[in-house]
Amino acid sequence: MKLPLGYRYAAAYAGIRKVRKDDVGLIVSGTPAAAAAVFTTNVVQAAPVRLARKHLQSSGGKVYAVLVNAGNANCATRTGDRVALVSSKAVAEALKTKVRYVLPASTGVIGVELDAKLLTDVVPTLVSQLSPDGFEAVARAMMTTDTRVKIASEEMQTRRGGVRIAGITKGSGMIHPNMATTLGFVMTDAMLSPRELRAMLSESVDCSYNSLTVDGDMSTNDIVALLANGASNVRPNGRERKVLQAAINSVMESLARQIAADGEGARKLITVDVFGFKTTEDARKIARAIANSPLVKTAVAGSDPNWGRILAAAGYSGVAFNPADVDIFLQRTEVCRGGLAAEFDESHLKAKLDEAEVSIRVVLNGRGKAEARFFTCDLTEGYIQINGSYRT
Amino acid sequence: MKLPLGYRYAAAYAGIRKVRKDDVGLIVSGTPAAAAAVFTTNVVQAAPVRLARKHLQSSGGKVYAVLVNAGNANCATRTGDRVALVSSKAVAEALKTKVRYVLPASTGVIGVELDAKLLTDVVPTLVSQLSPDGFEAVARAMMTTDTRVKIASEEMQTRRGGVRIAGITKGSGMIHPNMATTLGFVMTDAMLSPRELRAMLSESVDCSYNSLTVDGDMSTNDIVALLANGASNVRPNGRERKVLQAAINSVMESLARQIAADGEGARKLITVDVFGFKTTEDARKIARAIANSPLVKTAVAGSDPNWGRILAAAGYSGVAFNPADVDIFLQRTEVCRGGLAAEFDESHLKAKLDEAEVSIRVVLNGRGKAEARFFTCDLTEGYIQINGSYRT
Repeated sequence: MKLPLGYRYAAAYAGIRKVRKDDVGLIVSGTPAAAAAVFTTNVVQAAPVRLARKHLQSSGGKVYAVLVNAGNANCATRTGDRVALVSSKAVAEALKTKVRYVLPASTGVIGVELDAKLLTDVVPTLVSQLSPDGFEAVARAMMTTDTRVKIASEEMQTRRGGVRIAGITKGSGMIHPNMATTLGFVMTDAMLSPRELRAMLSESVDCSYNSLTVDGDMSTNDIVALLANGASNVRPNGRERKVLQAAINSVMESLARQIAADGEGARKLITVDVFGFKTTEDARKIARAIANSPLVKTAVAGSDPNWGRILAAAGYSGVAFNPADVDIFLQRTEVCRGGLAAEFDESHLKAKLDEAEVSIRVVLNGRGKAEARFFTCDLTEGYIQINGSYRT
Repeated sequence: MKLPLGYRYAAAYAGIRKVRKDDVGLIVSGTPAAAAAVFTTNVVQAAPVRLARKHLQSSGGKVYAVLVNAGNANCATRTGDRVALVSSKAVAEALKTKVRYVLPASTGVIGVELDAKLLTDVVPTLVSQLSPDGFEAVARAMMTTDTRVKIASEEMQTRRGGVRIAGITKGSGMIHPNMATTLGFVMTDAMLSPRELRAMLSESVDCSYNSLTVDGDMSTNDIVALLANGASNVRPNGRERKVLQAAINSVMESLARQIAADGEGARKLITVDVFGFKTTEDARKIARAIANSPLVKTAVAGSDPNWGRILAAAGYSGVAFNPADVDIFLQRTEVCRGGLAAEFDESHLKAKLDEAEVSIRVVLNGRGKAEARFFTCDLTEGYIQINGSYRT
């Protein structure tokens, strides 16, 4: 994996988690990077979310360092704001920069006080260990119920040299469109303005993090940030920006797919594709309703080609359509034609549904051209086991 | 249980289910009863739902018989409309009445052809066995993944004599506000017009079936009907109608609570009460978001007083509020005050959360007076096991 130039990373154990496993990470750019970020839309917002938003505004979209911790969401606590500020300040002082260039992020349990000292004490260790090699260690440090480290990268060539993009993410449960217990940090060494980055992030997030659902719960802590430090010395022109956008989309889609595939208790990644609706909004509503349906997700868990549940979920999505116009495909096998059962080899299809990736396609036959894609996972006993006693 | 006068019931095995267990039920009123019904709002509607709606319209709100089957939803099939009509006709002929006075209802798997002959063949048996004693047998015949028969009754006295109300229902998974795989039939011997019944049903459904969620999935087959045959010879006056409304509300709320308590895999009934919001709609949105949250429901399953998830669910409900104004109670123990952790005895509360009924209360401190109540259940491994291979 070729990482973007000019970024260094470090991870360490601050003592926030009960188990001795890195729980803080630091990402530092050689020079302050242009940055854009999207945040949870939950009314209840964690202290670091509020502070990160404030810092991005006061810095005019510049980020020098990202400080992230797992094990405690720093949300709904008495001292939350102070903890976020004090720990960001410690990073700023160690790096000899201003606090507004530090982006804080937290994930973990809500409503438990986070000891600021755990964070401030570990900052010198983090700073002393910064290295381009720490990329994966940071991805690992921010894992909570994640079972796999989630990273993705792309590279593109321009006339003036290469540009690299690399991203890390975490998220497993409490995942829902328009953000969820998701932290995502995508770095590029392209030279872009904060304004350009905001537009690029917006497009990328729509086809990745905002097309992702694990359990329909939306967290208080979500942040996805895109950083561009210009270390490649390549300022993409109009055409190159399109290629770069596609590369960033690809990194973010890969991260989103990794989250869905590692959904709490998940054994299968489900991709829901919807075609032929009048508007993208309609297609997205249908895809989201299917991706969110516990009945669809348990059917996939059981390799049960129960297409009636897919049709029923589409039916309550809020989009008007004639069921007689609907075809449904499972693993590219037609299971429903014109709203009725199609002939298919059930035992063959059941075997195909045992695969690690399951494709659901819903096609509305008519004049519409809009389509949408959602990522989710199957719903298994594991989800219950993980979430029945997360806090204790 | 004192049943309403003038109704007879029968149940039988028609061979629709694989296991030999009654799968059809018939409810017959001595004289055509005034009737009102609410139906699924799913775009995909089962054939019996469409026919029942048509019959209610063409009869001007009169029902003589209800024919219900389990084991097959008669939905998304080639022959669905014909099956619903032919079976309703068989009942009408046997009872020497018109087909428009027969209300058909089905529940079970979607997309599998239902053999009309199974239904028509069993009608003579059903009619010959009609008896006031068959009430519970019909409730039992329409069970699918239900583990318990669900019935409720009330009685009221007026100056001119007693009035009785009794209801049966089924539903376990695919339960969601604004109806779900729910069939509910509530009979009274009061004398009321279809128009009066429609208003009464609407009020009762709002505080019962429409305040109920198991998994957020809405079915294609839901019907809740309220029948009044006047066999008591009591035509309630204005004040008595209020008492009757309360009694009907009570029957329907009891049926809804029984559905939640018997939610697929459920071990606990959860009642979510929300107080202090500006509008009932706001309070309902908050209650619904909490009742629908898989993270809240798995926490209850694990007796984990994880109030942060309750606060987070309220936060993404779409209602604006200040988290600092929120108090949360679990089993009447304050766990969150002003958006922050309250002091409570964790092991004591965990023990109380092991009880079969769990109360979640969310109070917004301010000037609002609106409140709402939702019923749901905990989310356990059992839900997954039931739904992973329902069809096969």
